Amino acid sequence: MTDLVTFGETMLRLSPPGDERIETADQYVVRAAGAESNVAVATQRLGLDATWVSKLPDSPVGRRVTGELASHGVETDIVWSDEGRQGTYYLESGESPRGNNVIYDRADAAVTTATPDELPVDRIRSASAFHTTGITPALSETLEVTTQTLLEAAADAGTLTSFDVNYRSKLWEPEVARETLTELFPHVDVLIVAQRDAENVLGRTGEAASIARELAEEFDFEVTILTRGSEPALAVADGTTHEQPTFEATSAHPVGTGDSFVGGFLSQYVAGESVETALEYAAGTAALKRSIPGDIAVVTPTEVAAVIEGGTADISR
Amino acid sequence: MTDLVTFGETMLRLSPPGDERIETADQYVVRAAGAESNVAVATQRLGLDATWVSKLPDSPVGRRVTGELASHGVETDIVWSDEGRQGTYYLESGESPRGNNVIYDRADAAVTTATPDELPVDRIRSASAFHTTGITPALSETLEVTTQTLLEAAADAGTLTSFDVNYRSKLWEPEVARETLTELFPHVDVLIVAQRDAENVLGRTGEAASIARELAEEFDFEVTILTRGSEPALAVADGTTHEQPTFEATSAHPVGTGDSFVGGFLSQYVAGESVETALEYAAGTAALKRSIPGDIAVVTPTEVAAVIEGGTADISR
Amino acid sequence: MTDLVTFGETMLRLSPPGDERIETADQYVVRAAGAESNVAVATQRLGLDATWVSKLPDSPVGRRVTGELASHGVETDIVWSDEGRQGTYYLESGESPRGNNVIYDRADAAVTTATPDELPVDRIRSASAFHTTGITPALSETLEVTTQTLLEAAADAGTLTSFDVNYRSKLWEPEVARETLTELFPHVDVLIVAQRDAENVLGRTGEAASIARELAEEFDFEVTILTRGSEPALAVADGTTHEQPTFEATSAHPVGTGDSFVGGFLSQYVAGESVETALEYAAGTAALKRSIPGDIAVVTPTEVAAVIEGGTADISR
Amino acid sequence: MTDLVTFGETMLRLSPPGDERIETADQYVVRAAGAESNVAVATQRLGLDATWVSKLPDSPVGRRVTGELASHGVETDIVWSDEGRQGTYYLESGESPRGNNVIYDRADAAVTTATPDELPVDRIRSASAFHTTGITPALSETLEVTTQTLLEAAADAGTLTSFDVNYRSKLWEPEVARETLTELFPHVDVLIVAQRDAENVLGRTGEAASIARELAEEFDFEVTILTRGSEPALAVADGTTHEQPTFEATSAHPVGTGDSFVGGFLSQYVAGESVETALEYAAGTAALKRSIPGDIAVVTPTEVAAVIEGGTADISR
Amino acid sequence: MTDLVTFGETMLRLSPPGDERIETADQYVVRAAGAESNVAVATQRLGLDATWVSKLPDSPVGRRVTGELASHGVETDIVWSDEGRQGTYYLESGESPRGNNVIYDRADAAVTTATPDELPVDRIRSASAFHTTGITPALSETLEVTTQTLLEAAADAGTLTSFDVNYRSKLWEPEVARETLTELFPHVDVLIVAQRDAENVLGRTGEAASIARELAEEFDFEVTILTRGSEPALAVADGTTHEQPTFEATSAHPVGTGDSFVGGFLSQYVAGESVETALEYAAGTAALKRSIPGDIAVVTPTEVAAVIEGGTADISR
Amino acid sequence: MTDLVTFGETMLRLSPPGDERIETADQYVVRAAGAESNVAVATQRLGLDATWVSKLPDSPVGRRVTGELASHGVETDIVWSDEGRQGTYYLESGESPRGNNVIYDRADAAVTTATPDELPVDRIRSASAFHTTGITPALSETLEVTTQTLLEAAADAGTLTSFDVNYRSKLWEPEVARETLTELFPHVDVLIVAQRDAENVLGRTGEAASIARELAEEFDFEVTILTRGSEPALAVADGTTHEQPTFEATSAHPVGTGDSFVGGFLSQYVAGESVETALEYAAGTAALKRSIPGDIAVVTPTEVAAVIEGGTADISR
Repeated sequence: MTDLVTFGETMLRLSPPGDERIETADQYVVRAAGAESNVAVATQRLGLDATWVSKLPDSPVGRRVTGELASHGVETDIVWSDEGRQGTYYLESGESPRGNNVIYDRADAAVTTATPDELPVDRIRSASAFHTTGITPALSETLEVTTQTLLEAAADAGTLTSFDVNYRSKLWEPEVARETLTELFPHVDVLIVAQRDAENVLGRTGEAASIARELAEEFDFEVTILTRGSEPALAVADGTTHEQPTFEATSAHPVGTGDSFVGGFLSQYVAGESVETALEYAAGTAALKRSIPGDIAVVTPTEVAAVIEGGTADISR
Repeated sequence: MTDLVTFGETMLRLSPPGDERIETADQYVVRAAGAESNVAVATQRLGLDATWVSKLPDSPVGRRVTGELASHGVETDIVWSDEGRQGTYYLESGESPRGNNVIYDRADAAVTTATPDELPVDRIRSASAFHTTGITPALSETLEVTTQTLLEAAADAGTLTSFDVNYRSKLWEPEVARETLTELFPHVDVLIVAQRDAENVLGRTGEAASIARELAEEFDFEVTILTRGSEPALAVADGTTHEQPTFEATSAHPVGTGDSFVGGFLSQYVAGESVETALEYAAGTAALKRSIPGDIAVVTPTEVAAVIEGGTADISR
Repeated sequence: MTDLVTFGETMLRLSPPGDERIETADQYVVRAAGAESNVAVATQRLGLDATWVSKLPDSPVGRRVTGELASHGVETDIVWSDEGRQGTYYLESGESPRGNNVIYDRADAAVTTATPDELPVDRIRSASAFHTTGITPALSETLEVTTQTLLEAAADAGTLTSFDVNYRSKLWEPEVARETLTELFPHVDVLIVAQRDAENVLGRTGEAASIARELAEEFDFEVTILTRGSEPALAVADGTTHEQPTFEATSAHPVGTGDSFVGGFLSQYVAGESVETALEYAAGTAALKRSIPGDIAVVTPTEVAAVIEGGTADISR
Repeated sequence: MTDLVTFGETMLRLSPPGDERIETADQYVVRAAGAESNVAVATQRLGLDATWVSKLPDSPVGRRVTGELASHGVETDIVWSDEGRQGTYYLESGESPRGNNVIYDRADAAVTTATPDELPVDRIRSASAFHTTGITPALSETLEVTTQTLLEAAADAGTLTSFDVNYRSKLWEPEVARETLTELFPHVDVLIVAQRDAENVLGRTGEAASIARELAEEFDFEVTILTRGSEPALAVADGTTHEQPTFEATSAHPVGTGDSFVGGFLSQYVAGESVETALEYAAGTAALKRSIPGDIAVVTPTEVAAVIEGGTADISR
Repeated sequence: MTDLVTFGETMLRLSPPGDERIETADQYVVRAAGAESNVAVATQRLGLDATWVSKLPDSPVGRRVTGELASHGVETDIVWSDEGRQGTYYLESGESPRGNNVIYDRADAAVTTATPDELPVDRIRSASAFHTTGITPALSETLEVTTQTLLEAAADAGTLTSFDVNYRSKLWEPEVARETLTELFPHVDVLIVAQRDAENVLGRTGEAASIARELAEEFDFEVTILTRGSEPALAVADGTTHEQPTFEATSAHPVGTGDSFVGGFLSQYVAGESVETALEYAAGTAALKRSIPGDIAVVTPTEVAAVIEGGTADISR
Repeated sequence: MTDLVTFGETMLRLSPPGDERIETADQYVVRAAGAESNVAVATQRLGLDATWVSKLPDSPVGRRVTGELASHGVETDIVWSDEGRQGTYYLESGESPRGNNVIYDRADAAVTTATPDELPVDRIRSASAFHTTGITPALSETLEVTTQTLLEAAADAGTLTSFDVNYRSKLWEPEVARETLTELFPHVDVLIVAQRDAENVLGRTGEAASIARELAEEFDFEVTILTRGSEPALAVADGTTHEQPTFEATSAHPVGTGDSFVGGFLSQYVAGESVETALEYAAGTAALKRSIPGDIAVVTPTEVAAVIEGGTADISR
């Protein structure tokens, strides 16, 4: 049986090598990248049995995506389509003051037309948990409906539902996002939201802890996690607030840190561990991710444990 | 003053290195590729003063295109747009029996919305020659109108108009193409068409020479060129038929051979050389192109001359 | 349910890029390579549901192997071991007169200690077919016993058993091989053997067709396939001899041609197609493989069909 | 009309990838690099219409230089020569305590024989501004005369003249430099000099501000800029001293920082902006450059503005 | 005459490029790496005439090792063997918290069977100095005997003997190591040991200085060097204790730092310089190494001198 | 004792990867390349003890040259100079009709000032054989005298002298070459000359065999070898003419074929083998070279023997 099903878009990420620029590079490094598949991979690598569900163009480019995800052990359950394109994004990385630059080219991806009819809803119903993010309903009106339907189906079936707000300003306006999200929240058990999104999108103000508690109460989430960049993350569960500091880490590969946090959390929480344990694991996975190229947390449980125990997995000879 | 203006789409071409597969490669080689810009570059390198006119997204990805074209000396006159994407295509190459594989991802490119209003029509009017291809009107209804308008404007101004049929079955049906093309032909002075397209799209039958003569008469072209793969090309001008055999060449990099032929031809014909001379140059440029990676004929007049004279530009030490 | 289980060793293949030499290269390209996993991947890509069973060191190097196989959709069912190393081989390729050069470094691989007790024998029993090769029993005495046991278990359970002789002179002497193999053959349904091995190892002489018939009769194989390099392959089944010519193909990437042939055959035969159909598919897959870098047939059913129909999958634009 | 003409040498820069060593690397990364063309590119990218004038060998190696410059939109006006070589330099980069290492191989470059007769002096006369550096007269006696002539011609025609001292100890002795430079200074409007060069070459002592004022008065420069590494730069204009701190930046790619500073300054000053504005832009461009591989500031006005406004152009999603 | 002979294993080091992971990389960078050959190269580059003695498989893989060492000027005197493999190790590097990861694959290397009979003992006898490390006797019982024999032979012949404890926990237990090492120590003149190994393996406790003095007295070493990571190294010689702080350096390429320290020391001490001078050179070489990819100190005497003098060998133009 | 000393220039060869163009490539592959060092390496690899003597700039670039040569076991005896540059050449390769293109940048190389006083003439006197080529005296007037002096010294000392005419039209005129060469020939024992050079430079006409005999008689060479591209080579020795056909080989890497032929010949002839045997070895080495990237014959005696025996060293598994 599947422990976790995730649903969403995975793009091909095209990056100039090292710190070259998009404008002048002659090669782009190719990687699969998507919030929900990032989570599926992280949980699979950390012990769950994960499946990623989506819709992709029936082409070598689409298979490039599933091949990379499957290489980490994730099962992919795909609607292969003759219509719609493979979404891509261009990412370049540079040291300060240049920073990272992202150019999305994801319009009209095959996934934007995915309907519940064609998706394996039964797998979601029979899984222990289901996870998606706020990116998915933002991609198209069809996906807004589909996301709602899948969350409802999962909730009805007793599948734990997890949702990461993951607001993307290039996809929708805060007001639109707020409206859509608050319709989805009643079907959500575990909510993850960055403090910045809680403020700008959900319109919350005040101290982090009170924001978390407020959200927890308003939507009756089982677990409400507020992430805060390099500040400690907060989780409210059963009326208790847990605080989890971040582990020190490089900023070499920040993209995917948030998804790794969620993957680390779910890998433990879905397996029955406590919120505290899961949070610690989340922070350890996120820290490790920042040292790993690509969007995906190519980590092992041993490595996460080593980070939590305060050391690094440095050379043992 | 500009000798030649070309108008059309240029894509980013993404290719796995060597003979790797799209599905499994971890890097893609990036190159600018477009029928009309290929012609602009070839003519610029072979002596003309060429300008490529188009519409591109105002982003590093769009500048990646103009940067590569400008590096060959071509002037680029671009409508920079906040709407529309950068078209791309995936190309993989393999030896027999695998062959080459192309996956277009060009829908909704910025250029598809280009209207005569925003384009530098005066540059076309004041140029010696204007060139576009059958790909351009096939990309959108807007571009169908724009192509018609630009050809008319050029013809009115006494600018020599050149048109390569370049039928793309992935863009439109033969019947639709035929109808559109025959509306454009009255404004065309130099027509280049592959025998295959003359048959399948324009509905011609019979011997190559009679097809060429028929087309020349029907549309009153100044020059009508029928290309025939590895068979000799035919040109009808002033009622005379010229035959130009191909030069022996590798099949290492076939993509762009046709555009190189056109570029070689125009580089001479626009400069006032005879049809025979221009045809020979066309065949020499096309042969050389097949040894050069990418879509673009990175050649010099000296190299083309060497091929025509029957040798290769091999090591002189 | 699994259609096909294969069992054997997969090595990491280390190759200098292009036609560089092992001795002077500064980078080696890394790929997974193993006769039985090559077959598993080919059949999975061509429509079966395939599982590869083996024993690997519990390390990033071992996971490098499963990651690549899983990226093609194959399920991997692995005994992860703290003992034994990851076998490797160095391969360099050069044009004539240099040829290819192979240096094995596979002694003491973890798989050499794999016993039936630790392997998922039930998966073999419940699969439609089981495949292994003559390399496996040659790797260690333990594996000789294990191979025998697995073939017997499969045969007992009614699983179709397939065996490719695949003689490796660097692993054992012909006489030893002959003795071992003839003990395994009674449990084999489909035998694949190169004519060269039938002669040198199995001691057969005479015309190819009579060798195939002799082997078929002596060991009562359901299907007996004799491969003959660029000459037509022969198959004897139900007393009938089928001949399947090879398709023309490059010699760019010959390593893995034989495994691709077997994979193509089993993908059809296990799915219920006739010996003739399966043989044709085998030849088509083998031809395509020769254009593809690495040991693995990264092919699609559409591409194999195109080769069989006599064309190539060349550019369609 | 051209806003800015620059004149000088551009070399091919050959660098081992990453932090490899010149002595042991098997590939060198190739880039165009020259103080005056670096400035031309920076100003072009930041809004001016720039032309780089020089003399190069008529070969693919020479065209490698113009191709890269032209890709940034700079016009190149070149005397193509059959004599003289393409200057090169080898650069390796390493972290502390290794640092960067430069080996020049620029003797007898084609440019060293460039005379005013063959150069497009009229373009300089009709441009808004002309820029060169102390490297140019140091390269040959011919170039010493040519530099003098071009500066005089520009000054006579009312073209703003800009000069960066850019002392190179590998090219000439301080005393020789001093003598030559003081003959050129009367024709210079905007002087840029590092405090170190002002001291060691021009023999100045004392506080930075007084050095700048002294130079300004002695040679009657319109603007006198003293750069001081990571310390604030000073500019004296109209009797006022402006101070511009540096923006924090990585030291990943320091080569070309000074040219980027000059390019940033001229892009604004030639466009009519104030000295303060131009200085700020100079510092912003220089900071950004340090994050960009190669000698050239591959930047946009938007990025420079972001640095000045205190942020980075980091990921917006 | 040879100044220094070293004896030991050299492996092929296989590393993913940059900070890629072993598990997901598609290329591995190949380098020669061995404690004793690292020392030989460092001393050769710093002025000695060094020879590395070992046993390698007679194959391109074995020649890959000698080719790289010889490229630095080291003479290699090799027993080429048809038995035994080329030892390898996988190394990946990542920023914190990931750190470096090493996977040895060195069992059954050809060198593990090397006996004094086949090795050029006379070269050791006639050299000024002989160096090996604690890795060598740990590799096999044969090598334990061989190490003892070679050290005795050197000591008998008056060759200075140098020994770096270099404890490897993956090769042997501390107790076994201690027993073996204390049998070797009577034949050793110069001992180098990390404080950590002095404690964990040799069972010493207390202050660093007293550990060093104790060891010096107990085994009557000519020089006893205690290295202490980033803390100052200590050397006891002639009853005097010398302290040598480390020079500040990057941690980009830490592997091989210790061998570079030893190489720097021996390059001076064997050449007749004082212990103080040699220690300073050791620290300078070690600091530089940390900026250089691979295991080997690709340095020059000029560069080491620059580090000692407190600067870096940064750009001089 | 050294078997063979060679003297001449070695350049750094800079080549775009694969079939990229010099003008557009972003990386150049770096290799050592020189007629005389090519011969030294080939003979060393094929069993002789070879030394290459030259003068190089004392820099990482100069050491890049000796490092690569030494990696093949050749001893390098170098005058390290603070004057003079490292000669380079740019080489690009393409399939027909493009061919190979060479751009020399070798003027003022350090070696052009090498005088007998600074070179190790005693090593030449005490060696079994000395080899140089017609490139060396063509590089400078100093080298013309040096070549003459070294050949005389060798001849006086009884060292076998070998000379490959190797005419380079980019270095000198045929008439000048002829005059210089005919002054050197009296000191030469083994002459190798391409038929083309014998005709164009030495002014010979007629059948190949009679040209060879004429030269042999006129200059009293011990062995006179006439190479003829893909036609059989001829050797006249002791009044007998030997004919040696070429072995079939790829044309992938033709540069260095001639030097490999000479290296193959000398490796046997200096070792005491007959002219016939040496010629066959020469042809085998030359054939193999054509499959090997770079200028250098990275071959083994086993591989040459395999080519001579008519097979290839293809996969044995």
